[in-house]
Amino acid sequence: MEEKIIAIKMVIDAWSSGVAKMKTILSSLSDEDFENSIGNDKVNYIIAHLTAINDLTIEVLGIGEINNMNLYNYFKVYETKLPLPISNKELLKLWTITCEQIDLKIKDFTPDDWFGKHTAVTIKEFNKEPDRNKLNVLLNRSHRMATAVGQLSLFNKSKS
Amino acid sequence: MEEKIIAIKMVIDAWSSGVAKMKTILSSLSDEDFENSIGNDKVNYIIAHLTAINDLTIEVLGIGEINNMNLYNYFKVYETKLPLPISNKELLKLWTITCEQIDLKIKDFTPDDWFGKHTAVTIKEFNKEPDRNKLNVLLNRSHRMATAVGQLSLFNKSKS
Repeated sequence: MEEKIIAIKMVIDAWSSGVAKMKTILSSLSDEDFENSIGNDKVNYIIAHLTAINDLTIEVLGIGEINNMNLYNYFKVYETKLPLPISNKELLKLWTITCEQIDLKIKDFTPDDWFGKHTAVTIKEFNKEPDRNKLNVLLNRSHRMATAVGQLSLFNKSKS
Repeated sequence: MEEKIIAIKMVIDAWSSGVAKMKTILSSLSDEDFENSIGNDKVNYIIAHLTAINDLTIEVLGIGEINNMNLYNYFKVYETKLPLPISNKELLKLWTITCEQIDLKIKDFTPDDWFGKHTAVTIKEFNKEPDRNKLNVLLNRSHRMATAVGQLSLFNKSKS
């Protein structure tokens, strides 16, 4: 197997592992848990931020448009003092939808697609820095997901 | 640039980014902070667990031996009810040493080294699953580091 194919598998596996961990965590949280906090951050805020990143990822990978612009704008301007512009139920639904959209579309990516530029970089920038590719987007997002998994797992442990 | 070289750069950058984040977090923690908790986990426990993983990584990458077998064994048998077998000062030192050892050695890795098998897999297993390579070890460890960064950053935010 060619190294580039192996590298693509590694990154997709890391992403899928994160999604699976999030699924386990989300299914363990009660409605009340969503309103509770870990440290100074509310549980639903952590999930909403990660979901907004997922939603933006769809655009950056060039596989669709942001589903929820309200949530995107909320985090873009970082209005943490305002209530979240989405209910917990809608949030869970959006999380699931964005994961499904990403998984469905990346299945068809060729190796050249993965090592091609993402939508938030110019061709000139990309030619200089070929690591600003779609595979790196998924890699960065899977690290961001691991950060949230760490935070939410602390909350779950503190309940038990 | 060949895709495999690009992929190696991506993973090393993700690793280095995690090490830099940890450096910032560790320099912001007071002696007292190390003894405090976030959720049910003590701050020094989170750092010690990550450090033990770093220390084991040295062995799995085939670049040296575990520095602190006491700490390794502590987490291997998961004796969370016993006190940590290392002082906070020693812990910080071990963290720095393990990061330096890894960074120093991986500088000399060739692409073939990165895509070669790590020490915890047999040749037979590796031939079937070529993604069980050294690059994937660093990739997995950088995700594990992102998990700890998420947890420790919650602690830091809760102080402010």
